[in-house]
Amino acid sequence: MSLHHSPLFDKMTGYIAELQDRICAATEERDATRFRHDRWERPGGGGGESRVIQNGTLLEKGGVNVSSVHGELSEEAASALSVDSREFAACGISLVLHPVSPRIPSIHMNLRYFELESGDAWFGGGTDLTPFYPHFEDFRHFHRTLQKACEAAQPGSYRTYKEECDRYFYLPHRGEMRGVGGIFFDYLRENPEHAFALVCSVGDSFLPSYLPIVDLRRDEPNEDADREFQLFRRGRYAEFNLLYDRGTRFGLRTSGRVESILMSLPPLLSYPYDYKPPAGSAAERMQECYQPQEWAPLE
Amino acid sequence: MSLHHSPLFDKMTGYIAELQDRICAATEERDATRFRHDRWERPGGGGGESRVIQNGTLLEKGGVNVSSVHGELSEEAASALSVDSREFAACGISLVLHPVSPRIPSIHMNLRYFELESGDAWFGGGTDLTPFYPHFEDFRHFHRTLQKACEAAQPGSYRTYKEECDRYFYLPHRGEMRGVGGIFFDYLRENPEHAFALVCSVGDSFLPSYLPIVDLRRDEPNEDADREFQLFRRGRYAEFNLLYDRGTRFGLRTSGRVESILMSLPPLLSYPYDYKPPAGSAAERMQECYQPQEWAPLE
Repeated sequence: MSLHHSPLFDKMTGYIAELQDRICAATEERDATRFRHDRWERPGGGGGESRVIQNGTLLEKGGVNVSSVHGELSEEAASALSVDSREFAACGISLVLHPVSPRIPSIHMNLRYFELESGDAWFGGGTDLTPFYPHFEDFRHFHRTLQKACEAAQPGSYRTYKEECDRYFYLPHRGEMRGVGGIFFDYLRENPEHAFALVCSVGDSFLPSYLPIVDLRRDEPNEDADREFQLFRRGRYAEFNLLYDRGTRFGLRTSGRVESILMSLPPLLSYPYDYKPPAGSAAERMQECYQPQEWAPLE
Repeated sequence: MSLHHSPLFDKMTGYIAELQDRICAATEERDATRFRHDRWERPGGGGGESRVIQNGTLLEKGGVNVSSVHGELSEEAASALSVDSREFAACGISLVLHPVSPRIPSIHMNLRYFELESGDAWFGGGTDLTPFYPHFEDFRHFHRTLQKACEAAQPGSYRTYKEECDRYFYLPHRGEMRGVGGIFFDYLRENPEHAFALVCSVGDSFLPSYLPIVDLRRDEPNEDADREFQLFRRGRYAEFNLLYDRGTRFGLRTSGRVESILMSLPPLLSYPYDYKPPAGSAAERMQECYQPQEWAPLE
């Protein structure tokens, strides 16, 4: 490759490949369907592997994608990132799971590392939960697990990243979040080894943050109204990703692999006009959850 | 109101109100469900009336909205429009119909007029068809009707507006259009009375361009594969509107009425991963239609 990437880049590439295997294996243990593996190459350098599952027993659609690319940034990409250097290397894992059951939340995680020839380098990432049913204890479990992961690597960091997530996964025209948040961080430039430790701690927390919810809720019976609300909130999910998500818009503008980028969109979704949840329904109790709030006790 | 709008503004407001009535009446003749009327006021001045139908026998979702607003443009809106003057008046009709049957195309039309205190004023608008089944003769009927409407008001204009439409309703990351196009024009500043005549000619052509298709196809039996393809293409429709449509993005950024703006989104849609139409299927024959091409003979 044209860029002499760092040993840290190799460590990150190794970590995300192993994490992809680990997450897919744990998911396949719970789904009768297997992930389809699509390896792809980037004409400018590098490539990736998308692993996608569709119409499974647990997952209606899910993707766990890794990529490691390098080459020269387009002028537009360099300008979008506000960097001077054009030679780059980037790697990351990006994951979205949309379960069949409305009683199990959708989940997203992304961990990424970016290096420029100039020596500038940074980590970014985050994870957030998009539930459709008011199992508040599940949201607390998710946030507490993330809190432990952040605090173990960077004491005091959960609050900062949690608040950043509340601001990021937000639909300003709706005045609400797409889900119940999680953590979000970007441009972690200082102390790269330290940032890598955080990224690994967050990556390792994925299965413990999510699987207990899956296992607790997967056999829970659900009603038509739950499914309807799930399709409605999936609409907000797609609305956020297409209108605001920086990764999605950056990827499409810079000619990333379209199917891997838009893998994040829900399999089936609805846009009813002027939807109002029925009074006293589970959907109505969910509405308040889409405002930023404390889900983990103050550390 | 703060802006002394022109007599032409009043004529346009009158025209779109009458057109809204005419289109809703013709639609209700064909649907067992009635339009719900939502009048709304804009805090800064003016308002509108959204007429929306959901879960009808003909239309799964449809909206025929008019608005007439005035006041002061936000700095962001003025900058987005590249204008100096901040006092404005704007009126328009915006229509999207998503039929239940995949054998009937979705359709969109928008006609609008914008006036600034500086005296600058312009018309814009267009209409486009989004079919899901290869009834090529329907696409030709639609385009020929538009061709006649354009040529009657502005000889030689169909080609220009048709090509502008091919460029506008285009998803660059997919390399395809959202449908089979139609016409699109904007910033018609010269000869306002002349432009108004075009707008009326296009508005008047709406029912003759669309109703014959509805009446011909509404009782046509359809298969599960047709519905699947309709949901898939509706995904592209939402993708276009949220990622690229200038009206949608401008409206949301400038605090328009969210439910009226996003009324355009399909009621139910899907995002399958890496979809490929079955060989020899109607869906496969449709794929070629999403590339710009001639649907009306050269004038």
